[in-house]
Amino acid sequence: MYNAMKLKEIGEFGFIDRVAPLGRIRAEGVVKGIGDDCAVVAVDGPDYLLVTTDLLVERVHFLMDWAPAEVIGRKALAVNLSDIAACGGIPLDAFISLAIPEDLDVEWLDGFYQGMRGLADSFRVNLLGGDTTGSKSDLVINVAVTGRVPCDQVLLRHTAREGDVIAITGPLGESAAGLEILLGKLQLPPQVAAPLVAAHLEPRPHLPEGRFLASSGACTSAIDVSDGLSSDLGHLCQDSGVAAVVYEDRIPVSLPLARFAELTSRNPIEIILSGGEDYVLLVALKHNMAEDLQRRAHQQGMRLHPIGEFIAGRGMELVRRNNTREPFGPRGWDHFRA
Amino acid sequence: MYNAMKLKEIGEFGFIDRVAPLGRIRAEGVVKGIGDDCAVVAVDGPDYLLVTTDLLVERVHFLMDWAPAEVIGRKALAVNLSDIAACGGIPLDAFISLAIPEDLDVEWLDGFYQGMRGLADSFRVNLLGGDTTGSKSDLVINVAVTGRVPCDQVLLRHTAREGDVIAITGPLGESAAGLEILLGKLQLPPQVAAPLVAAHLEPRPHLPEGRFLASSGACTSAIDVSDGLSSDLGHLCQDSGVAAVVYEDRIPVSLPLARFAELTSRNPIEIILSGGEDYVLLVALKHNMAEDLQRRAHQQGMRLHPIGEFIAGRGMELVRRNNTREPFGPRGWDHFRA
Repeated sequence: MYNAMKLKEIGEFGFIDRVAPLGRIRAEGVVKGIGDDCAVVAVDGPDYLLVTTDLLVERVHFLMDWAPAEVIGRKALAVNLSDIAACGGIPLDAFISLAIPEDLDVEWLDGFYQGMRGLADSFRVNLLGGDTTGSKSDLVINVAVTGRVPCDQVLLRHTAREGDVIAITGPLGESAAGLEILLGKLQLPPQVAAPLVAAHLEPRPHLPEGRFLASSGACTSAIDVSDGLSSDLGHLCQDSGVAAVVYEDRIPVSLPLARFAELTSRNPIEIILSGGEDYVLLVALKHNMAEDLQRRAHQQGMRLHPIGEFIAGRGMELVRRNNTREPFGPRGWDHFRA
Repeated sequence: MYNAMKLKEIGEFGFIDRVAPLGRIRAEGVVKGIGDDCAVVAVDGPDYLLVTTDLLVERVHFLMDWAPAEVIGRKALAVNLSDIAACGGIPLDAFISLAIPEDLDVEWLDGFYQGMRGLADSFRVNLLGGDTTGSKSDLVINVAVTGRVPCDQVLLRHTAREGDVIAITGPLGESAAGLEILLGKLQLPPQVAAPLVAAHLEPRPHLPEGRFLASSGACTSAIDVSDGLSSDLGHLCQDSGVAAVVYEDRIPVSLPLARFAELTSRNPIEIILSGGEDYVLLVALKHNMAEDLQRRAHQQGMRLHPIGEFIAGRGMELVRRNNTREPFGPRGWDHFRA
């Protein structure tokens, strides 16, 4: 019997691999097409144009009763700004498309735009034209954001080198824990739950960190952690043709995440490796400049945690506190696999 | 009793008017934000950057069983290229976001991309990064397209002047008739139905016409007809602060549309005024250059039909064949009104 292949069998990344070659039509002007945080396009002048787009779907990415409209609006923009940050860029304009169930309150939409506007304001991003249409069921939000980055500063995924230090610009895992709490699986004390839920609903795009790293001359590669550390480190390794060693004792575990792990009898490192939507930057730093860069980052109120290094070879390895070494693979979020 | 205001009460354009002021954060660099076919952004070099985005939702914009995946893919790109055409631009790159029901066949998606690729190929447009995610119900497609246009050639909606000739680059109304046929309301002979259904499913973006008009120096304003002649002419009038007179006997009626009108006992002009998704260009031409331009367009195999003129004042008027004059208002498509 003939069975049509379903998307869940090949997964999100299998699908992207399948369609990406179809898109290459005109090579000139395209620095990076599919397969990075942003598309990078050569235009006149000293900067590259960056373009990124994210589609958020009710019941897949969020539930309406999780948070006020303002919070959902802010996050819809934040995840796109995070992509601009991962390329070391400066965001310019956002284009909002909405498919709206017809019985949605106008007040909800006003709140949604107010939330986006608050975040847009702080980074001087315009909310420009988009498309507004109806939906028969779920609310759908597409945000496309343009940005720019000096041509000699763009941060990409395929340029990490063996010997580079692996670093992150903030703690990981909190957002995944917050999502579990939102999904109602757990009852936890509010002082544990609140910061984790906030980490999930109100991620801060690491734009200052992105610019700091891009202009430092010390950062060779970057990605934002949206699919979990293991998946996104996997992307850097695969695209750059290197392997990675990560040290458990160097991975920062926030106090709320530590408490969450304790209360749910889990190892926080597992949550960090597989959780998603952290929106901190995962970067490669030149070995001999990493320490100085870390010091300068801290002076400017930014965090930069070295957690391992890129080495020759393939694959990823976790060095446990007891010095045993465990290989690990990508186990983050794939929208089409179970 | 308190009743929250619903979107259908204020309509799509009421909503856009409501949120547009929220978006203006950084004035410099923005030539046109919300309220034209594309956002127009000043960048380095001799060209403006154009950005347009369209969201297509299953059961709102299309049904899966209307057409093969290739046709739906082609149309999703075509409607965005039409926005670039309306600004007189040259398309550059397309960014495709999909929210995909998990049981959709991979073969369908392959076909969808093949269809887009066919059209992208003919206009040398790249299909670059986008976002791919799951959906709990409908397939959702967002396409964002960038383009460029020489700064002194950009065509906008607010620049038509009294005395300008109103012209269209192709016949109207066929797409609306095709949609009625697709919705299964009518049984018609295939030689009537086929070209109308094709007009709805396979619109050709009028990019050559857009470039021809933009570079002619004779075109003062343009829009693509997506919401019906009465709505889109209404946009030009309102944004430009002029009134319009349209002559019934100058509006071209295609043979299939004439037959359709006859068989359904309607006046084709009514279908043309209220129907949508034609994706031909509706433009304003300098009076003293219009005739020469029309001649040159025809020499190049393009159509350019003068159908009326812009005059001082407010509102729109239709001059019937018997010389009676009837005012008319926008009665095209609004996604949120009944």
